[in-house]
Parts: sequence; structure tokens; C-alpha cells
Amino acid sequence: MIGHFKQYLRMTTAINEVQVNEIVKSFTPRKVARGTLLVNYGEVCREFYFVGSGCIRTYFLTSGGQQHTRFIALEGSVGTAMSSFIGQTSSTEFLEALEDSELYAINYRNFRRLLTEIPGWLDFYNLFLEMAYIYQHEKLQQLSTLSAAQRYEKLMKDRPQYVQRISNKVLASYLDIREETLSRLKSR
Amino acid sequence: MIGHFKQYLRMTTAINEVQVNEIVKSFTPRKVARGTLLVNYGEVCREFYFVGSGCIRTYFLTSGGQQHTRFIALEGSVGTAMSSFIGQTSSTEFLEALEDSELYAINYRNFRRLLTEIPGWLDFYNLFLEMAYIYQHEKLQQLSTLSAAQRYEKLMKDRPQYVQRISNKVLASYLDIREETLSRLKSR
Repeated sequence: MIGHFKQYLRMTTAINEVQVNEIVKSFTPRKVARGTLLVNYGEVCREFYFVGSGCIRTYFLTSGGQQHTRFIALEGSVGTAMSSFIGQTSSTEFLEALEDSELYAINYRNFRRLLTEIPGWLDFYNLFLEMAYIYQHEKLQQLSTLSAAQRYEKLMKDRPQYVQRISNKVLASYLDIREETLSRLKSR
Repeated sequence: MIGHFKQYLRMTTAINEVQVNEIVKSFTPRKVARGTLLVNYGEVCREFYFVGSGCIRTYFLTSGGQQHTRFIALEGSVGTAMSSFIGQTSSTEFLEALEDSELYAINYRNFRRLLTEIPGWLDFYNLFLEMAYIYQHEKLQQLSTLSAAQRYEKLMKDRPQYVQRISNKVLASYLDIREETLSRLKSR
């Protein structure tokens, strides 16, 4: 699994092996069971994750108990409750494991230390923030301008693995549509 | 006006005067009239702006002609159609001047050159991306979890200058509510 993480770092940024090893040393492997809550609402998110296997997601919860999935990270990608992590402020979203997962975690202090010690890590973080920005931007754009059917079609095209793997309940909350609507779209 | 920009750079990042001057040299002043379209839908966004005076905004347009304002930058802040600028891809949003504005513009090539030449600019960009990420995240969260009244109250608290200065039409499209609803909320 650690090999996947090293490979990920080599692929995403110009970085030498010494730096790759220095970064990997700052991450701790952790197995979590499906349903594990990694960050609760109101809690400060203290860790950033590489997903070695499995799947994690963040979601908002309305006062009426409705979930809105914001972000899904499958194996081979990184993420966390980022808004809370950046400023070490109370999280307005939940972070949970959607499947049994093998994660690599780095805490906030080490994350920031690497930014000053390893130029490649700053480059990586910059690229990550750009991609995370675009991911959120697309979500906002799709919620604002696309119909339920169009959002589903776009997801099928851009992230078919979500449709194959994620439960209808979570997928519907990701697309901001009702489960019945999703079932209808899927059966077309 | 250029003094404001220098001040902004000094405030946002640890940067010496030589670097500040090097950065400012790469920006070109430009006056734009209210209503000027800086980036059209489908066009690649080639510039990043510091707003010296006035105000710019980005918005999505639905197929039915409805506007959704995503981002507003008043004087003393920076921004652009960022998703398009990052990857030099076709923009899915419009960027326009909401008021007569004095901008400082840097093109993509110079923006990227500064990232490799001036460490302070990379630090600035990193911080900007973090703030832009949080800005979008809050917008997503509020759209997902807050009622129209709650979104308006939050805006009054966090960004009262928007309410004082931006037209009801644009403000309603920013809050994703109808103009009549906004008028009602304002008159309370």
C-alpha cells in the first residue's frame, strides 16, 4: 500500500526519492472500518489522508437530517475535511469511511512542517489545492446550472466508478437529487 | 492605487520589498467600465486581477437565462475566473466588472513565471488558494444546509459591504434566492 502512495507522489509532482521517503515517513498507516467517523461536525479536523484502499467521503447535514455529500475520495487519492484542516477551525461537515479502508494519515503539525522543509511538498500542496478548487467549482456549477438528469449523465461520463461503487443513498446526496429520481435515471 | 496592491502583498505573505516590486512590475493597470465582460463563457481566462477600486464578479448562466453569482471581489482583493485560469481551459462562468473599476492584471505566463522565480509569490498563491477554497466551501455548505433567510443573515454578518453595495438583482443571484424574497428579507 505504501508503494501506491509513493507512486502517487512521484506522479503528481517533480520530487526526488529522498523527499518521497521523507514525506512518507511523516504519514501513519491506519485501518478503519466502514462507517467510522473520522471528523465529526464541530470538531477540528487534525489529519490529512491518502486513501490506500477503500473510500472516504465528506457530507453536510441539514437541520432536517438530510445529508449532502460534498466530496468522495476513492483509493489512490487524497483528501480530508479540508476547510477545517486549513484553518484548524470547527468543521461544518462530517468525514467518514464509506468502506473498510486503509488510510495514511499525517497530522496538521507535520503537514505544515513538510511545507517549509520539503519544496516538493509545497508544490504538491499547491497542485492539490488547485484540483480541490476545480472539484468544488464544478460541483457548484453543476448544482447551479444542470438538471438532475444532466448531473447524473455528467457523473456517468466523468466519474463512472462512483456510479458503480457508491450506494444509491450516498450517490443521490452527492448529486443533490432524491433517491427515487436516481433509481429512475439509472434504470433508463 | 499601486500602493494598495503593494500593501496587500505585504499583508498577505512574508515578502521583502525587492520581491514586492518584482511582482508589481508584472502587473498592468487597466481601467474598465461597469458592465465590461472580462471573460466570456467558453473563453479561456488569461489574466488574474487585483481590484484597486470598484468591483468584479463571476457568474454562471443557466440555459433558461438565470444568473448565479459565484464570487464577488471588492477593491483590495484578488480574483478571476479561477477554474479556467488554473488549467487554461474554457470557462464555464462569466467574469464582469460590476462597477467602473481600476484593476491590475497579470497574464498566465507571467503568473507561472513568478511562481518559480519568487518564493513569496508561491506562498501568496498557496494562501490565496486556501482562502478561495474556503470561500467556495462555505458557499456550497450554505446552499446545501441554510434557508434563504439564514443565508441572508449570514451574509449580513460576514460580508455586510455586499449588502450595502451590490444591486438586489446580483445579490439575490449570489444568495440563490428570488429578488422578491431578498426585498422581503431586507425590509424586515
